[in-house]
Amino acid sequence: MNKSSITLNCDMGESFGQWKMGNDEQVMPYIDMTNIACGFHASDPHIMSKTIELAILHNVKIGAHPSYPDLQGFGRRSMHIEPMELSEILIYQIGALKALCESKNTEVNYVKPHGALYNDMMKNHQIFEAVVDAVSCFAIPLMMMATMDNQRFLDIADKYEVPLLFEAFADRAYLGNGSLAPRSQSGAVLKHEDDILGQVQQISQYGKITSIDGFVVPIEADTICVHGDNEDSILLIEKIKQILEN
Amino acid sequence: MNKSSITLNCDMGESFGQWKMGNDEQVMPYIDMTNIACGFHASDPHIMSKTIELAILHNVKIGAHPSYPDLQGFGRRSMHIEPMELSEILIYQIGALKALCESKNTEVNYVKPHGALYNDMMKNHQIFEAVVDAVSCFAIPLMMMATMDNQRFLDIADKYEVPLLFEAFADRAYLGNGSLAPRSQSGAVLKHEDDILGQVQQISQYGKITSIDGFVVPIEADTICVHGDNEDSILLIEKIKQILEN
Amino acid sequence: MNKSSITLNCDMGESFGQWKMGNDEQVMPYIDMTNIACGFHASDPHIMSKTIELAILHNVKIGAHPSYPDLQGFGRRSMHIEPMELSEILIYQIGALKALCESKNTEVNYVKPHGALYNDMMKNHQIFEAVVDAVSCFAIPLMMMATMDNQRFLDIADKYEVPLLFEAFADRAYLGNGSLAPRSQSGAVLKHEDDILGQVQQISQYGKITSIDGFVVPIEADTICVHGDNEDSILLIEKIKQILEN
Amino acid sequence: MNKSSITLNCDMGESFGQWKMGNDEQVMPYIDMTNIACGFHASDPHIMSKTIELAILHNVKIGAHPSYPDLQGFGRRSMHIEPMELSEILIYQIGALKALCESKNTEVNYVKPHGALYNDMMKNHQIFEAVVDAVSCFAIPLMMMATMDNQRFLDIADKYEVPLLFEAFADRAYLGNGSLAPRSQSGAVLKHEDDILGQVQQISQYGKITSIDGFVVPIEADTICVHGDNEDSILLIEKIKQILEN
Repeated sequence: MNKSSITLNCDMGESFGQWKMGNDEQVMPYIDMTNIACGFHASDPHIMSKTIELAILHNVKIGAHPSYPDLQGFGRRSMHIEPMELSEILIYQIGALKALCESKNTEVNYVKPHGALYNDMMKNHQIFEAVVDAVSCFAIPLMMMATMDNQRFLDIADKYEVPLLFEAFADRAYLGNGSLAPRSQSGAVLKHEDDILGQVQQISQYGKITSIDGFVVPIEADTICVHGDNEDSILLIEKIKQILEN
Repeated sequence: MNKSSITLNCDMGESFGQWKMGNDEQVMPYIDMTNIACGFHASDPHIMSKTIELAILHNVKIGAHPSYPDLQGFGRRSMHIEPMELSEILIYQIGALKALCESKNTEVNYVKPHGALYNDMMKNHQIFEAVVDAVSCFAIPLMMMATMDNQRFLDIADKYEVPLLFEAFADRAYLGNGSLAPRSQSGAVLKHEDDILGQVQQISQYGKITSIDGFVVPIEADTICVHGDNEDSILLIEKIKQILEN
Repeated sequence: MNKSSITLNCDMGESFGQWKMGNDEQVMPYIDMTNIACGFHASDPHIMSKTIELAILHNVKIGAHPSYPDLQGFGRRSMHIEPMELSEILIYQIGALKALCESKNTEVNYVKPHGALYNDMMKNHQIFEAVVDAVSCFAIPLMMMATMDNQRFLDIADKYEVPLLFEAFADRAYLGNGSLAPRSQSGAVLKHEDDILGQVQQISQYGKITSIDGFVVPIEADTICVHGDNEDSILLIEKIKQILEN
Repeated sequence: MNKSSITLNCDMGESFGQWKMGNDEQVMPYIDMTNIACGFHASDPHIMSKTIELAILHNVKIGAHPSYPDLQGFGRRSMHIEPMELSEILIYQIGALKALCESKNTEVNYVKPHGALYNDMMKNHQIFEAVVDAVSCFAIPLMMMATMDNQRFLDIADKYEVPLLFEAFADRAYLGNGSLAPRSQSGAVLKHEDDILGQVQQISQYGKITSIDGFVVPIEADTICVHGDNEDSILLIEKIKQILEN
């Protein structure tokens, strides 16, 4: 993999009705891929449309960001849904975004599950397979977390002919086993610019991260996930972009 | 128009979660077109999937049956939504059903709005145009109510290159101006089998209905809407089907 | 405990908007306590009002039947909600029902959690304590499942000065440890009238049940839960009522 | 009426789940009455609880701010709901807030409907009566818009023994008939501090406003509604408070 080809992705379209979230207008110019919420944890048809238009304006690839059905919990609460029904819920959301994209002459390029569903599919192969099954209907890739053992996920996805895109996180600390440090752990979210930029450089240039307890862990990532929650984070995204372009 | 080609359509997929509505399994064998709810006034991804499978089994054409967003009110309460946002809401719902159809190798063949939205588009040209605009993204026909003046709707739809399908009602009494008698009026819903079968025969053979106050009114209909709420209504649908086939 | 005082309770008010569920009108005459859904897994303000009026008509005690917020899943899917927020969600629902009761000059007499929340509070003491905390605001009892060890629940509830009402199930098979046989197990739901009436008699007269694997287990129950899903079940409730009255 | 007793009220608790709206912490110290959303257009049980605690901290009276059921439209879209069902929807919401208040040893002091419902009740006597009917269950006042003819509302409310509180708006332009200039009209929202403070002074000291077209109109108000949307508006509320205290 040519490390210089690592892209930036960001969760967007997370407003809902009258409630605004994120700084999509300011972040969009600096990223390559935008994961657009599909109305089950955030967003609504109008906000999805606006976010699609913003992506078109900045030539950013659009991904569907589907979720468990839980607006009040922002899709962050695990729900026990039967695998077949989970697939149907995902096809519904991806299809809704796809139609809105096609109404503006663009398309959905990939799928990245959101929140509790993202975490659950990393831990539970039955859920992962339900996700892959849904994505296979659209003949586009699934974006998921890069781990020390991407192969076991590739094996499942191959059966469904679903390509995988692996992402790493710019501002999250990792454990020695390549998983994310839980948010409850001190230092789980990197706060200092130097730490974040250093982690981005290590991922993009060497395909490695240094874990919170000092181990150097190989992480093969196609894309890096950034967050645009406030003014500082937007400045940081600019700098991350510069690192990746050099 | 060859009158013998008049089809039967029925609203279906109106269950929600654990709540059952309608007798879809029993009605599906007798109809030609099924209007499937899209999750905003009824249905959910699992019920939509089951209804699509049932339609495939009986070789019935699938239409999207989108609505205002109002589960508790079953889409029967008018809501003031801006035309552009209304279009987006419809594209979202139609797209969701379309993706579920494509996951089962079938397709959405037409769109018929539901409930208060159906009534509103018949009365308000701005709302009608918002609906036509949404449907035009899918290059399929819009199903709407046949009136004495279908042409003024055709003029708008032509601008968007959206074909129209006109429907008449088997069990609703009409006024002399070709509109439906309001449900508050006595006799608005036909109860006797003879009256209903007579109305079907008159529509299909002569392109006319006899209004509640005795006028003979021309109604050019492509399809007749039936309801399958109970055992009696299912027997009636069988008889209506026989009339149309002879 | 005077066994003849064992009451019958039934979940009711489980319709939603246009969707009907249950046969509340037919069942209400035979029961003593009605657990009314509060709008989070079923019911809405209008259906709650109608159910309250029906309870008043038949002099049946009203209980709040609150749930996780999940209409589409009917409150049957576990959700990970923080204990404090869970208490707030329950106070909201119980308070809503209480105000509707007071608008009709009656009151909420007890609380029985629904579905996944009911199961979760039986297994997880933190969730049980969150429930008890919410119920303590209303100075009424909590209804829960009778187990072989009611005391450990009484110890927690006593701290909050919340009385407990223990219920047994007329038509569910028990395991040797006094818990319910999981629905996935063959025979988990009793189908034969004789089995059900026999279990009711054993509970009410001897304070015991015979488990699915043949053990006689002591179960101290204040009330027996029945279901009124269909015509047969309503006839059965009449017979259960007769057993308890003799 | 002693003009110096005019209070300040503000809509609050309008966040939802992860979405923040308003600057409740900064505004609460300067107002007398807080209208708390009840979960149908904004808020949820957790946010309601936090807002109640904030009101207690600053000794601010709590009002229920119920709405049509429409989170996505923020209760700003008119919905056609039968009067009896509307009353039930309001009792549900007010009761939910009341129980959360009582769990913190405080109470709901009044009710002020939100958004489209507020506008609808001012225009439609049937809706106004449904609102008054709901409020009468709680034996607390209803807050509504002060008009040139408060008496016709008092006549209806008296039948239900519901006291009325009349509010005027600090930053909205009025028409010569005492109603608000529609937002579509230029100048409908006052932007300049001098205009706003002048209007507050005229209302509080003289019981009058000067309409957008130059008429001096009598407006008997018990309370003035302010908004805390941004930093500037918070500074303005401080100044309005000073005017009222002098």
